[in-house]
Amino acid sequence: MLGVDPGLTRCGVGVVEGVAGRPLTMRGVGVVRTPADADLGHRLVAIEQGIEQWLDEHSPEVLAVERVFSQHNVRTVMGTAQASAVAMLCASRRGIPVALHTPSEVKAAVTGSGRADKAQVGAMVTRLLRLDAPPKPADAADALALAICHIWRAPAQNRLQQAVAQNRLQQAAAQRASQTPTAQKGRIA
Amino acid sequence: MLGVDPGLTRCGVGVVEGVAGRPLTMRGVGVVRTPADADLGHRLVAIEQGIEQWLDEHSPEVLAVERVFSQHNVRTVMGTAQASAVAMLCASRRGIPVALHTPSEVKAAVTGSGRADKAQVGAMVTRLLRLDAPPKPADAADALALAICHIWRAPAQNRLQQAVAQNRLQQAAAQRASQTPTAQKGRIA
Repeated sequence: MLGVDPGLTRCGVGVVEGVAGRPLTMRGVGVVRTPADADLGHRLVAIEQGIEQWLDEHSPEVLAVERVFSQHNVRTVMGTAQASAVAMLCASRRGIPVALHTPSEVKAAVTGSGRADKAQVGAMVTRLLRLDAPPKPADAADALALAICHIWRAPAQNRLQQAVAQNRLQQAAAQRASQTPTAQKGRIA
Repeated sequence: MLGVDPGLTRCGVGVVEGVAGRPLTMRGVGVVRTPADADLGHRLVAIEQGIEQWLDEHSPEVLAVERVFSQHNVRTVMGTAQASAVAMLCASRRGIPVALHTPSEVKAAVTGSGRADKAQVGAMVTRLLRLDAPPKPADAADALALAICHIWRAPAQNRLQQAVAQNRLQQAAAQRASQTPTAQKGRIA
């Protein structure tokens, strides 16, 4: 599970292995940086190269990215949206599914509160992954938190999707059953 | 000159050849579309493939993209930012310079008014490129307008950059000339 906390200047990246209900293991953590004085196109290329390296090295089954939100200021949002687009593109190109989680989903998953601050998130990530110290910078800790959030939420999401799919199948079967006579009547008439 | 009017659902693309002060020629126009029900990662991959095809076919010297702005609603802005990130990435990866122009710069360049509406932009693009009818959809016309805008503004931008560079060189020379005696004094002391 590769978590990406997208940003033009710093993209946090964290790899976590495990399943819900068992202790999790950190496989890697880092930051893809691009120089603020480079032009936008070159920064996006640098992010692409960085993410590609992480995908090459860890072959994650899923990429979890922060869902970009309107509450930030617009200038930041643009950079975040652009960096996250590159990360999603890299994963989708390889057929790796992309999962999006909002910042408050991530905070709630790892700390129990959707309004937790960076220090709380860092502390919980440190504890959950049995690290010696909180990963720095905060973007790196956030990327690990995203990965943890996805591992914990995915089973529930999968069960929900299965339930919805099951329900649709049953409805479709019921509809076919109720329509069949009519359809036959139609054909006979 | 490839102009791209970025969007997730429709990316307008237009190729214009020519220099400022001479009649311009349209070399191609179209739209890269992605299905609204596909997931975001796959839509970004489809945009990448579409833009790559245009770059392959036309080998533009510059890619001009609309500078994404805050005045739109946030949901639209996110998609526009993400689509434009993919277009910029494709160009920069090939070493093709990326130029950004705001919507009002583009409107002002082709119609004389920064507040022109879509119909006016379409009409002027039709006239400037000697087309039989305005290109449709509007995104395609906007992409051509972007390319025209860049062709017309670029010489001014280049002259400005040259003037700034020239000025810096002169200042640096003047500074060296005034500092040399002091530096020598320093060394002597």
